[in-house]
Amino acid sequence: MSRITIRPARREDVPEIVALLADDPLGADREDTSEQALAAYLAAFERIAADGRNLLVVAEDAGAVAGCLQLTFIPGLSNQGQELALLEGVRVAAARRGAGLGEQMVRWAMAEAGRRGCGAMELMSHVTRTDAQRFYERLGFARSHVGMKRAL
Amino acid sequence: MSRITIRPARREDVPEIVALLADDPLGADREDTSEQALAAYLAAFERIAADGRNLLVVAEDAGAVAGCLQLTFIPGLSNQGQELALLEGVRVAAARRGAGLGEQMVRWAMAEAGRRGCGAMELMSHVTRTDAQRFYERLGFARSHVGMKRAL
Repeated sequence: MSRITIRPARREDVPEIVALLADDPLGADREDTSEQALAAYLAAFERIAADGRNLLVVAEDAGAVAGCLQLTFIPGLSNQGQELALLEGVRVAAARRGAGLGEQMVRWAMAEAGRRGCGAMELMSHVTRTDAQRFYERLGFARSHVGMKRAL
Repeated sequence: MSRITIRPARREDVPEIVALLADDPLGADREDTSEQALAAYLAAFERIAADGRNLLVVAEDAGAVAGCLQLTFIPGLSNQGQELALLEGVRVAAARRGAGLGEQMVRWAMAEAGRRGCGAMELMSHVTRTDAQRFYERLGFARSHVGMKRAL
């Protein structure tokens, strides 16, 4: 794992990140890796990059994007004004799974959230992703909440 | 319900919002309504108010805070660059429950998130809050995810 660099995503990483998001049982139906769709992803990337409370990172291995995740640092009154980190969009390239990269990325995310003063981290994992839930339990996350979602 | 005004929270609302957060089975243990604790809540309020992607709102009824919620508008690449609204800290004063105020507040939040271009709304509800989960199901939210959390 010594070659892995975890760093903020750059605009030129976006096509590789989109490919990661699409290479997924849930992402396959909702992402679009065509040339025409790229503009919408790039615009979203610019919104993330312009916001100091959002951080999209990639794990780079020998010049290729091997994984990605996004952190959102959320201020709030609850818990005596504790700041919270939301972890989203954690993906590891199919060819890189099972080698500890996901754990390395999530531990990096926890350390970064701690550096930014967050007191807790939360995430929502689709009910079908039972392997992911076991993975997060191993990293100290409790299945404390029901995650609910609706389209607007 | 005609007297209810849903509006952005102001600094002077903070003590009433903290009282709402504390008057709750989970909040009772983690909040502090003492004078000494107020500074930390006010500092957190200023961080929320300074951030364009976070919106803390109150439902005001005849000059009193009858409810509160927070929205976070999160940019992301997933779903072809769809923006997501996270709903947190929804509380209704004990004396106002059962009169539709919570529904009015959440419908306001959905409309506001839609106005801001969000394509979906998500929330995490503690596993013990089964009444809240039924309430959100009635408003169109699916129990699609496992919500996981850990301290940092």
